[in-house]
Amino acid sequence: MHHPQATSRNSAAQDASKAASGVLARLRACNPRVHCITNAVAQNFTANILLAAGCIPSMTLSAEEIGPFVAGAQGLLVNLGTFDGERRQAAVIAIDTAARHTLPWVLDPVFVDRAPPRAAFARELIARRPSVVRLNHAEFHALAGHAPSRDAVAAYAGANKIVLGLSGETDLVTDGERIVALTNGHPLMTKVTAMGCAGSALVAGCLAVEPDAFHATVAALLMIGIAGETAAEKAEGPGSFANGIIDALYNLDGAAVVARAKVF
Amino acid sequence: MHHPQATSRNSAAQDASKAASGVLARLRACNPRVHCITNAVAQNFTANILLAAGCIPSMTLSAEEIGPFVAGAQGLLVNLGTFDGERRQAAVIAIDTAARHTLPWVLDPVFVDRAPPRAAFARELIARRPSVVRLNHAEFHALAGHAPSRDAVAAYAGANKIVLGLSGETDLVTDGERIVALTNGHPLMTKVTAMGCAGSALVAGCLAVEPDAFHATVAALLMIGIAGETAAEKAEGPGSFANGIIDALYNLDGAAVVARAKVF
Amino acid sequence: MHHPQATSRNSAAQDASKAASGVLARLRACNPRVHCITNAVAQNFTANILLAAGCIPSMTLSAEEIGPFVAGAQGLLVNLGTFDGERRQAAVIAIDTAARHTLPWVLDPVFVDRAPPRAAFARELIARRPSVVRLNHAEFHALAGHAPSRDAVAAYAGANKIVLGLSGETDLVTDGERIVALTNGHPLMTKVTAMGCAGSALVAGCLAVEPDAFHATVAALLMIGIAGETAAEKAEGPGSFANGIIDALYNLDGAAVVARAKVF
Repeated sequence: MHHPQATSRNSAAQDASKAASGVLARLRACNPRVHCITNAVAQNFTANILLAAGCIPSMTLSAEEIGPFVAGAQGLLVNLGTFDGERRQAAVIAIDTAARHTLPWVLDPVFVDRAPPRAAFARELIARRPSVVRLNHAEFHALAGHAPSRDAVAAYAGANKIVLGLSGETDLVTDGERIVALTNGHPLMTKVTAMGCAGSALVAGCLAVEPDAFHATVAALLMIGIAGETAAEKAEGPGSFANGIIDALYNLDGAAVVARAKVF
Repeated sequence: MHHPQATSRNSAAQDASKAASGVLARLRACNPRVHCITNAVAQNFTANILLAAGCIPSMTLSAEEIGPFVAGAQGLLVNLGTFDGERRQAAVIAIDTAARHTLPWVLDPVFVDRAPPRAAFARELIARRPSVVRLNHAEFHALAGHAPSRDAVAAYAGANKIVLGLSGETDLVTDGERIVALTNGHPLMTKVTAMGCAGSALVAGCLAVEPDAFHATVAALLMIGIAGETAAEKAEGPGSFANGIIDALYNLDGAAVVARAKVF
Repeated sequence: MHHPQATSRNSAAQDASKAASGVLARLRACNPRVHCITNAVAQNFTANILLAAGCIPSMTLSAEEIGPFVAGAQGLLVNLGTFDGERRQAAVIAIDTAARHTLPWVLDPVFVDRAPPRAAFARELIARRPSVVRLNHAEFHALAGHAPSRDAVAAYAGANKIVLGLSGETDLVTDGERIVALTNGHPLMTKVTAMGCAGSALVAGCLAVEPDAFHATVAALLMIGIAGETAAEKAEGPGSFANGIIDALYNLDGAAVVARAKVF
């Protein structure tokens, strides 16, 4: 018996996987500027991940300067790790600037499960309509008030008119209508700080060269997941792995993305 | 002729060395949350060292959020490197929260020998009774007003009711009554920024799973010292060494700790 | 036909190349303290580059403490990346302190091409007479109002009474009278964040042991460029390269500097 929803899901998976190869090629060709409001732990690693993929990162947070930096960028990340007054003010200016320039942006609501004021602020930002929200299971639970089942995740994305990238053993990406599961990646990725933050920054980079936010999100998560698998083949632990994933992302090409993508 | 003090010292050394293996096993099993107020230079490396040992780090500094983060943690580090108003305010809130939750905490009074106001603030914090103070010779001298002889270090620890971990060519750990010398480690450890800071964070992680602060401190310094020796066998310089020590710590097991510990 | 200016340039190149070897030897022997006001992305990598070269870095930014830190240092870096109120205030105090102690300092006007207020502040700082300004082509253009031709660069250095280190495919170093081109380095250096920032910090380190700011600048750029070439021989991408350049700088000796220097 034929199951229409499954077919539409498979077709979304095939499209997304093919699109990822094109997104990578455009990152290499266009070198988009990506401005990142991110936590102090993640700044260096995030910048190096973006450079390895072909993007040009900037990271300034000062209220006086962030407007021109965002206005000159093609993508924006707002990451709530190590949040403080300076970053909060920077985020508001940056999002206003992004709205004026129709710049796509990504929200990474790091650790909203740990501090209620952070969750409240994240909800305000989601109301400002980021293109993508990327988070883990505990963070989804804190924001949505319930566990991230496949249906719940799709419903939350649809209701908030965002693409949602949920990371876990299996990643889920959905815009409310399309939904795919991604199984690339390696357990060592959880042993390197800022790996998720850097992945969110790469989503912002992909949004800069791919107008379909669903495809951009799948592309970024595939790239980092496949680079992680490649790096794990040689790594002796999380220290060598952290460098290895930068090397692998730098050397990744579209053919490898298509050949190794596990999208369902 | 029998020398009772030497015997008691040897017995402390044997106990501490055995305890370290158990502490490592509990880090791997319990994955304690360790909140770190630390300097911007050290944040990334510290987080990766904690992850490699089995801990879950968090690093936020904002006054609005740090209370819940500390309340949800099992260990706390207060490191004074790159100290500023934000970190000072965060430290006060964090220590108040730790006191309410009887959370053990570690003070690392980085560079108190360079700036008098920092030394004064460190003395105020020591009066708040950290479980452990970890510092180097110049920092001890600045706080205590005299050089760190073996007796002076034990006296300072006893008078302040703290465990003191003094790093140098030979590390000393004392609670005023017990005192041991540790000679594991490698000179390359002084050529990687934030190595001492990360070691102090690991003490906070060990305190989360070991109620005897003397044993927790010895365990952390043994782990990082032995990982350093292992990493140095392959390193080509401080760059590869910085990653290698993370790999080595990740791969360290209790048997290696017992076999390689040099505690006297 | 004989061309006197070319001769004088060649002689400057030979002098500078020989001087570099001596500067490196003095870094290893004297371990100068270098205080860095630098951006959050660059702090860790910069500290490790300085340690690898033989310097002792410090990075505090707080208004209360930075005076004593600068007063106790032998070199100072003011880097404008991720600039904010705290760093702006720190820079003013640090430069006042440097002036009182006749301490040499380096300005790295990162991204002044992206935000007009930052360019205005950089011009104020140049009027305070840093020993060296190190920047790239876009940053020179933003400050000087025109493109960095060889003559324009020399004229700008002469008019502002500074040494100028201009990075690009070919680096230029000039004090207005002497000018040399340096062609050491590797394209991977542009794929690691904070590489230029760390190079500027190394200039500050070299100034601490070499009173001729022109020679100090050439020495620092040679060291980092040659270390980059060495690291690139083994690197598999920018991740392994970032560590490799630290290893290579740590292992660099004066003979290698003289043998591999490409100064014209």
